[in-house]
Formats: sequence, structure tokens, C-alpha cells
Amino acid sequence: MLKTYKISTKRRVQAVEITSEVRNAVRESGVKNGICVVYVPHTTAGVVVNESYDPAVMEDLMAKLSQLVPAGMGYRHLEGNADSHIKSSIVGNSASIIVEDGNLLLGRWGGVFFLEFDGPRDRRFHVKIIEG
Amino acid sequence: MLKTYKISTKRRVQAVEITSEVRNAVRESGVKNGICVVYVPHTTAGVVVNESYDPAVMEDLMAKLSQLVPAGMGYRHLEGNADSHIKSSIVGNSASIIVEDGNLLLGRWGGVFFLEFDGPRDRRFHVKIIEG
Amino acid sequence: MLKTYKISTKRRVQAVEITSEVRNAVRESGVKNGICVVYVPHTTAGVVVNESYDPAVMEDLMAKLSQLVPAGMGYRHLEGNADSHIKSSIVGNSASIIVEDGNLLLGRWGGVFFLEFDGPRDRRFHVKIIEG
Repeated sequence: MLKTYKISTKRRVQAVEITSEVRNAVRESGVKNGICVVYVPHTTAGVVVNESYDPAVMEDLMAKLSQLVPAGMGYRHLEGNADSHIKSSIVGNSASIIVEDGNLLLGRWGGVFFLEFDGPRDRRFHVKIIEG
Repeated sequence: MLKTYKISTKRRVQAVEITSEVRNAVRESGVKNGICVVYVPHTTAGVVVNESYDPAVMEDLMAKLSQLVPAGMGYRHLEGNADSHIKSSIVGNSASIIVEDGNLLLGRWGGVFFLEFDGPRDRRFHVKIIEG
Repeated sequence: MLKTYKISTKRRVQAVEITSEVRNAVRESGVKNGICVVYVPHTTAGVVVNESYDPAVMEDLMAKLSQLVPAGMGYRHLEGNADSHIKSSIVGNSASIIVEDGNLLLGRWGGVFFLEFDGPRDRRFHVKIIEG
């Protein structure tokens, strides 16, 4: 089963937690055991699984990525978002999570985050559940 | 279904677009809904999904990776390609893409790229399609 | 089929090869063709496929990550492991590997590594095999 969700980001760089949407997709699918693929069909955004308890974790991740791959000059791609494309490929645009007994095996602190690197924009992400 | 493709890279560091091969593998599989895993069985190469319209995007990615992880001295692995192994683990050696109605859900600008970090070499990549 | 393994890491930053555990999980599953997802349910650890022949490759990877994302001050997350969370999202917390004729398609030099970024700790990882 495939579910597509829309979100609107508010800043150029922003981590948006989407754990509840992904959990809902798993529940609605009725699949008890399998894998769940969260997929971002944009080339200037990404998705990760990381700590959801302290929002500072995602702030630190986004700040470090912006330090390693600064926006601005020095790129050949001239749309002003070369850094966004690079960050997307460093974190990746998909996350695979195991589904067991109808639950995501995220671990105690794990959440799923949509990572905006070139907002604010209207964005989408897909959740696909494969039984097996 | 599993398909294996061969490519020959021309430079030490090179992004080779393989979107058409991946699309062909999906079409030949006859699978309408599922996921497609593109897998690179080399430890000094990788695979990403990113913008295919402007080749400068991939040039910027490769240049930034070479800046963050320079080739050369200062590594313990003595074959001269420690940087290539590190870049491979930063971008990853597999990409999972959703298949819906027989099409890859790549997004408008998305393409699939084999990333060579220790060429020129003869290389392979696998495309596996799982129905579900 | 899902298998869960326990490991105990010995240092703060350590790469632990888990290739034999992953191969065993594939063998015990009886699955001949499909994909294998190795999943780390921790937000300060990761998993990669990279060279297993020379241990220096993993030492170089861990050293470079620690250089790019140093431990210590300057983060908002105050538990002293902000760097560990960031490294986890750079390498990723899952690896998807193709299974063909009952074997992992790892390539000649490939191994699977659990990457500890905030040890020493008791850790777990999951191996899920999907037939298809």
C-alpha cells in the first residue's frame, strides 16, 4: 500500500517530524510484518530516522550540515540551492524501517523526520509498506 | 526480478546517470507496484537519487565530497583510495525507490546516479524489484 | 523473517563487523531471492556496507567522521552525544542488500558493519529478509 502526504515547510532549512503520519500509514495498511519505505520525491530534501525526544538533536544536525555544506557562492549549479541538493544526497531521500506485529521498530527514541533544505515550499512524501 | 548492468567509468571521480537502465529493469519486471532497490556491489562507489536536469548538480556534489574527504595522505588504508571508501559510506551504496503503476516515483527532477569514487574502472550495479 | 542480534561495544567510536550474523539470518530464513534490510534501532549508531578485508578502511571512516563532526562543545543537545546523532544520520541506520540464490550480493570485498558512535554500550540490530 502506498500513502502520499503533503506538508508545507516554513523556513529554508527545517526538520519536520512525520512519525505519526508514518505510523498511521502502517496501521491503515493492515500489514503486520514487513518493511516500510519512506520516500521523499524531491531533490533538495531528505528523510532520516533520529531522536525525537529533544528537538535540539535535529537543530544540531541541520546546523552541522549547513556548516559542512554552506549555502551561497562557489557552486556550478546557479539556482542558489546547490547546497540543498548536496545535503539531500548526504542524508538520503529514503528511509527503510522494519514493521513487526504492526509496529515500526523505531527504537525508544526514534522518530522519522522530513528534512527541508530549500524551503519554504509545499512538499510531499510517500510511505510504502511491503509485506513479507 | 534481478537485473545486473555493466558500466565503464572514465575518470577517478564521476557521476554516471543510470535512470534509463533502472526504468528498463522496472518495465521488464512487469511489476506494477512495489519497491526498486538499486545496489552497487563495490566499496569505492555509491548510488544516489538527485537532480538529472542540470549536470552541474552532480559536479557540485562530487566536488564537495572531494573537498570534505580529500584524496591523498593521512589515511591508514594504504591503497590510495581511503577517501573513495569513505565517500561511498557517506552517500550509501543502495537506493530504494517506490514503484507505482509501473513507474518509478522519482519526482519531476529526479534521476538515479552511479557515483564512481575510484575510477576509471569496469563496474556493475544491480536492480532488484520487489512486488508488494 | 526477523532476527534480532545483541552486541556490546567497547569504545565510544567503533566499527563492529556483523557480516556473519547477517549471512546466518539469510540462511536461516530459507529465502533464496529477495532483499535483506539490516536495521539499527538506535539514534547514535549506524550501519554501512564497506570493505572488510583491511580494517584500516573502517578506522579511516570513523576518524574522518570524527574530524568532520567533532565531539564536544558547540551543540544545542546537551547530553554530550550530539555528534553521535549527526554521524548516525550521515551514514544512515539501515542497509538494504540484495539476496540472490540464497547469498548476499555484497561484492568481493564487502562486509556489513555496525557503527558505534556513543559507546561503550549494549546494542541491538535487526535483520529482516523480504522474499520477492
